[in-house]
Amino acid sequence: MEQAITTPVVGNGTGIEPSEAIHREELQLAFRNNAIPLEALRYDVTPVGLHYTLIHYDIPFVDTSTWQLEIGGAVRSPGAFSLADLQQRPQRTLRVTLECAGDGRALLQPRPISQPWLTGAVGTAEWTGTSLSALLNEVGLHENVVELLFTGADHGIEGGVEQDYQRSLPVEEAMHPDALLAWSMNGRPLEPQHGYPLRLIIPGWYGMAHVKWLRSMQALTEPFTGYQNTTAYRYSASREESGEAVTLMRVRSLMVPPGFPDFLTRTRIVRQGAEGLLGRAWSGRSPVGRVEVSTDGGQVWETAAIEPQQSPYSWQRWSYHWEASRAGTYDLWCRAVDSAGDVQPLEQRWTARGMGNNMVQRVAVQVI
Amino acid sequence: MEQAITTPVVGNGTGIEPSEAIHREELQLAFRNNAIPLEALRYDVTPVGLHYTLIHYDIPFVDTSTWQLEIGGAVRSPGAFSLADLQQRPQRTLRVTLECAGDGRALLQPRPISQPWLTGAVGTAEWTGTSLSALLNEVGLHENVVELLFTGADHGIEGGVEQDYQRSLPVEEAMHPDALLAWSMNGRPLEPQHGYPLRLIIPGWYGMAHVKWLRSMQALTEPFTGYQNTTAYRYSASREESGEAVTLMRVRSLMVPPGFPDFLTRTRIVRQGAEGLLGRAWSGRSPVGRVEVSTDGGQVWETAAIEPQQSPYSWQRWSYHWEASRAGTYDLWCRAVDSAGDVQPLEQRWTARGMGNNMVQRVAVQVI
Repeated sequence: MEQAITTPVVGNGTGIEPSEAIHREELQLAFRNNAIPLEALRYDVTPVGLHYTLIHYDIPFVDTSTWQLEIGGAVRSPGAFSLADLQQRPQRTLRVTLECAGDGRALLQPRPISQPWLTGAVGTAEWTGTSLSALLNEVGLHENVVELLFTGADHGIEGGVEQDYQRSLPVEEAMHPDALLAWSMNGRPLEPQHGYPLRLIIPGWYGMAHVKWLRSMQALTEPFTGYQNTTAYRYSASREESGEAVTLMRVRSLMVPPGFPDFLTRTRIVRQGAEGLLGRAWSGRSPVGRVEVSTDGGQVWETAAIEPQQSPYSWQRWSYHWEASRAGTYDLWCRAVDSAGDVQPLEQRWTARGMGNNMVQRVAVQVI
Repeated sequence: MEQAITTPVVGNGTGIEPSEAIHREELQLAFRNNAIPLEALRYDVTPVGLHYTLIHYDIPFVDTSTWQLEIGGAVRSPGAFSLADLQQRPQRTLRVTLECAGDGRALLQPRPISQPWLTGAVGTAEWTGTSLSALLNEVGLHENVVELLFTGADHGIEGGVEQDYQRSLPVEEAMHPDALLAWSMNGRPLEPQHGYPLRLIIPGWYGMAHVKWLRSMQALTEPFTGYQNTTAYRYSASREESGEAVTLMRVRSLMVPPGFPDFLTRTRIVRQGAEGLLGRAWSGRSPVGRVEVSTDGGQVWETAAIEPQQSPYSWQRWSYHWEASRAGTYDLWCRAVDSAGDVQPLEQRWTARGMGNNMVQRVAVQVI
């Protein structure tokens, strides 16, 4: 019989913090989980060490001499596959943009207490692996399978529940032709923090679906009701409501902050003259149709030039010529619209878990 | 004529914060600058993307088709070297542990406002490059040279001063036989955040001396009085005092937090039974002579097993067998003593800039 596990209360205990001040526990999470430095949005493909990471528990240490991917549940031929088994299968490389569903959480007012992302929980990589649907076809899903459940090797407590990290996907998404079991990132074996030896890549979905340190896949005939699916990654107005499941990435754009920074405050200084603004824009499974830039805090919007996608799932580069002709303080905003017509909101859409906050980025600049 | 640059005030304006609450500007810095997740102390050599980073301004984007290292000042043969020039010189690989001088800053009470490191601003890598002293001998330092000044390509404002990142070293340190001009980390070209294409490695010194994105070396006949040497990296009781220069890394040990974590609070849960504790210990230029562990918050100290150094400049692995026989709450501490007799203090040694806080790490654990 296990003793109850009690963990410290953070803030006022509601999980929602009205104050701007950040708690120490949030700072700890910020050090564990890395954002892309926004100047690194210049790279089409993000260098491995600059790609965002979100690690729920500890990075597990996986011994690939014994590691196997187990496949079971409602399948005709359950089995286990070594890394060598998987790497002998046909392989593909896909350029995919990943973003954490909690990106922008700590910009919300009041602030849901969790990983306190400001912005930049995103990155783009070249993922190499083998087709998930081909493997599922081979093991043979029963006709009544509704979801696939994916289990990682990372273990911890969350919301009072001891758990391995587990997420399910609807069977249609697991059978998506571009879903991968990936063992390589940017041409090299996965780094420990990115899921070594194997992770899921579900193009278009927020990061929580791309299960890292994957060790098991189970075919389910009833929907999974575990923590990450039914409690954590939800859009809801309160922590008590179930709300809607978080799925595809919402449309978003970010800019490289122009000029140079003040170390402490990250205030941006730009010298008078022509300044090329650039950034990236993406949306779950729709190309971005338009990016607009405002240099006066949202009064006038101008259209930025936007490059075509380099893959159906990668961000797009945009650029805008700004004539910073007069000294003063400027508020630079950028806003993307995807081909489905979804647009980034100017104001926050608050949710109790701080999910999917894709409101426009605002960069304060001092022109000298 | 340039307009004055004003940057927002953080906190009460003194740069010293009495409250536990973290300011948003500190959170921004925590996302830009990455600590090693403590479970990654298991690796002898830290994977590139898990090594700590501290970037004062932006990561600069250096074009190596035009980049050159300029060498000038009080030398007989000033010149400029391309990366290919440098890579044709004799090369060496050294395993070196680097730590940020501000590691532990945000554990101080009151808290100096800057990069708010808790712990883990450290990493160990294999650095490959060419001898700095050999190159300096070749260009020929004048007899009256007292310091070498190193300038990086990163540019920003700090403490109200617009600057390129610049640090000087006493000529004896620049001529140290193990000082390197390094272009490779763990066998690959430097990643952008680690100084591509070239950085200094000054084994034994805190990280601020290992200038990244190096573009210039100047031989000086008078000591450099720039910001990073005379204002930023100082041990002093107040921000007004000049104090002492920060130089070599102080002795320190860290442990891998045992068991598994709670996501939000990072509370550690350990199941009853034998638990192998392990960690790393290091000191600037002295081997670590002893590591001690306390499992009762410092009442009883036991000696840990410690492995010899793998290089004169790398951390050492230590381990300790803990019999976690009874359920309850434990306070695990570790403390290193180096061969010079320096020991980690139990209490903070407060300094106004939050430098060199090497007090013992404390890990709260719940045994169930």
